[in-house]
Order: sequence, then C-alpha cells, then structure tokens
Amino acid sequence: MIVVENNAKTVVMEGILDANDALAQANRAQFDQAGTYVVNIMSSPGSGKTTILERTLEALHSRLRIGVLEGDVQTSLDADRLSRFGVPTVQINTGSEWGGGCHLDANMVRCGLPSLPLQNIDLLFIENVGNLVCPAGFGLGENVRVIVASITEGEDKPLKYPHMFRCAELVLVNKIDLLEYLDFDLPQFQRNLDAVNPNVPRILLSARTGQGIEEWCAWLIAQQRKSLASYPVD
Amino acid sequence: MIVVENNAKTVVMEGILDANDALAQANRAQFDQAGTYVVNIMSSPGSGKTTILERTLEALHSRLRIGVLEGDVQTSLDADRLSRFGVPTVQINTGSEWGGGCHLDANMVRCGLPSLPLQNIDLLFIENVGNLVCPAGFGLGENVRVIVASITEGEDKPLKYPHMFRCAELVLVNKIDLLEYLDFDLPQFQRNLDAVNPNVPRILLSARTGQGIEEWCAWLIAQQRKSLASYPVD
Repeated sequence: MIVVENNAKTVVMEGILDANDALAQANRAQFDQAGTYVVNIMSSPGSGKTTILERTLEALHSRLRIGVLEGDVQTSLDADRLSRFGVPTVQINTGSEWGGGCHLDANMVRCGLPSLPLQNIDLLFIENVGNLVCPAGFGLGENVRVIVASITEGEDKPLKYPHMFRCAELVLVNKIDLLEYLDFDLPQFQRNLDAVNPNVPRILLSARTGQGIEEWCAWLIAQQRKSLASYPVD
Repeated sequence: MIVVENNAKTVVMEGILDANDALAQANRAQFDQAGTYVVNIMSSPGSGKTTILERTLEALHSRLRIGVLEGDVQTSLDADRLSRFGVPTVQINTGSEWGGGCHLDANMVRCGLPSLPLQNIDLLFIENVGNLVCPAGFGLGENVRVIVASITEGEDKPLKYPHMFRCAELVLVNKIDLLEYLDFDLPQFQRNLDAVNPNVPRILLSARTGQGIEEWCAWLIAQQRKSLASYPVD
C-alpha cells in the first residue's frame, strides 16, 4: 500500500478556501440580520435529499416561512419539484468547470441571495450538490449542516468520507424502509459514524413512508427557535 | 431561476487540466507498452463498484492477469477486500485537500504505477473515488471508462450529472435485484441516459445475485482482446 499526497494544488486551494470563509461570514451576517435560520443539506447523489425536502415542506410550510436554494451541476429538476409548494426557490447550476462544479461555495450562494426575500424567510434550506467530498470543505454561512446517508450506500461510508460525516450536526439515515431487502448492517453503520463523529444525533427516516419525518421536523423547529432566541433584542 | 457561473477558478483549473492531460498521455504510453488494458470505473459513493470488482475478480482472475488501483479519500477498506484474490492491488488515498481529494488524477495514478507489475497485468481496474462530478474531468490514461449507476439513486441522475454519463463507454446498471422494492422507472432511466449519451451500451447487473456479471465479463474480455490485436507486432 502507498499513500500519495497531491501537494501541488494545495497552495491554490488554501487561497480559495480563505476567500470562501470570508464570503461565508458575510452570508451569515446577512442571514442573522434577516432572522433566517439556514440548513446546509449534503449527501451522495440519489440519497434522497429532494424527497426529504418535499416531505419537510409538506409538513412545515404552513408553520414556518420557508425558502430553498437548490444546487445542481445541471437542470432545475429539483427546484421544479419543490417550487410547487409555493415557497421561494432559487436554482444555482454549478456549470461545466471540472466537468461540472462539484459543490456549492459561499460565492455561489451569495449570488443567489438577491433572488430570495430573506426578510420573509424563517428557515432556508440549501440543498448542496450530491457529493460526499468537497461540499464538506466549503462553508456557505449556514447555521447547521445536515448529512443524508442512504442505507443503500453501505455501512462503510462514514469511514471512507470522514470529513463529511465529521462536519455533520445531524445525520438523517434515509431509505430505512428498505432495511429488510439489503445486507446493510445498521449497528455497524452506527459504530462507524461514532468512530468519526461520536454521538452525533441521527434520525432513522424514510422519505417514502414518512417514518422519522415528524422527528426531523421537530428537531428543525427546536433548532430554529433556539437560534432565534439567541438574537439580540432590537 | 438564476444561473451562476463561477468563473474565478476557471483559469487555474484549465492549467491543472492541461497538466493532467499530459500526464494521462504518459500513463497511457506506459500501459500500451506493457500491453495492459485499463478500465477506469466511476460512480457515486455506495453504488457497488467494489462489490462488482469482487465478482469480476472471482470470474476472471484465472483467465486474465488482473491488477487493481484503488482510489479513496481515506482507508484501505476496498483494497483489503480485493487483495484477498491475490491480485496486485495498490491503494491511493487522496488525502485531506478540500476536505479530501474528490477524484483521482493522472499524477496520482502515475505515483501508484511503480508499485504495480504492469508487464504481468493484462487488465488493470482503476476504481475512482465515489463521485459523479469531478472524476469525469480527469483522464487517467485509461482505455475505457465504465460508469456504475445504482437504481437506488433514481432515474434522473444522467440528466443531473451529464458530464459523467456522457463520458461513459459502458454503463453498469447495478442493484437490479432491488427493482421490485423501489419506485425506480427503468424505461425513464434508459431514456434519460440516451438523452445525454445516445445508445451507450448498458448492462443490467446485480453484484449481489450475480445477474449480468457474465455479460460484463464477456464485454471486458472482448474489449481487452480487441485492444491487444491493435498493438503493432514487435
């Protein structure tokens, strides 16, 4: 076994990450000023982020003023699915760079903000590009990072993509309705998750059957209220 | 809807891609000289690349001299699974850059080559980092690119990750044994695939049940023989 470190690009990337952090702080100041609680949702492609958001909008859009910022390499398929709930939805396409930008960064989010009525949004979901690697490195100014892990992807993913699972403040373990049809070892997944992010909260969920959606929405509301309570009174 | 192009990084990335192409050509020359046929396997995390390779090594390692180059952000879990077949296996960890390098590039492969006895390898599998975006942009010097698409990921993926599906020379449609338990629309997936890469060959496969493995191995052997026949006689 050999380990190859690819140092050549590191200096360039450090500069990019530094600029990203500055823009993420500026985004966060804007969110705080508007009283908007922001959730950055990340996962592999096809783990069910958009379907979870559909169930979440169904459950919450009469209780909270919600907005969505959708990140995809191409198409507005996901934004189209969510805009039918009548919530403000902005699509960001990351385009063709590197065969398609593989993550949202703080500047892309910043470019999308003028299209969102932040003052009228209590809860903003940012659905990141489906990718378990780079999105973990680029803060967007969010309040909280939620990772969706589909049980169809196997129990080893926390170990193989530790940066992503380490940055999570909640893990939604999705497609749990398929458990009996898969060779997925749930206790082993839990142990692998604890190995990289001990005791991170996790919710077993099925966007298809609705299992866990209530618990997830209760968690969201509690987080949003806690955040709101911490703002200084005018 | 707005479209945000992130031009700031493009100049840097063009330079990186140019250097990558030069190194990929150098890798290819080395593969050709050794008579090694090289398959670059790409997919989302957890779509079943390693399990497919396990079944492939079982079926082929007595007929062809096989080698494996494993790309992962971290761990040697996949290489460990494959090395039990007694084939030369090299693990490349892409490390912590950007929260973990999200793809193999030609230089990483080049750094791994001295650890592989190329002269004694007819067929080399390069298992890329699980990611549907960036690996499509970085040629490694391979002869052929194979994409694994798991039906658990949904039928929209060719449209949402068109660069990846466009560069494919074969698509393995994996986890087909789960078809009856999912809301997956196979004809729609086929149409979406044809929309970005018309008539690309595809094999319906289940690494778990073995369905399609024989067809996939026959395809590999045919490709490898055709390539060998095209080399100039010494």
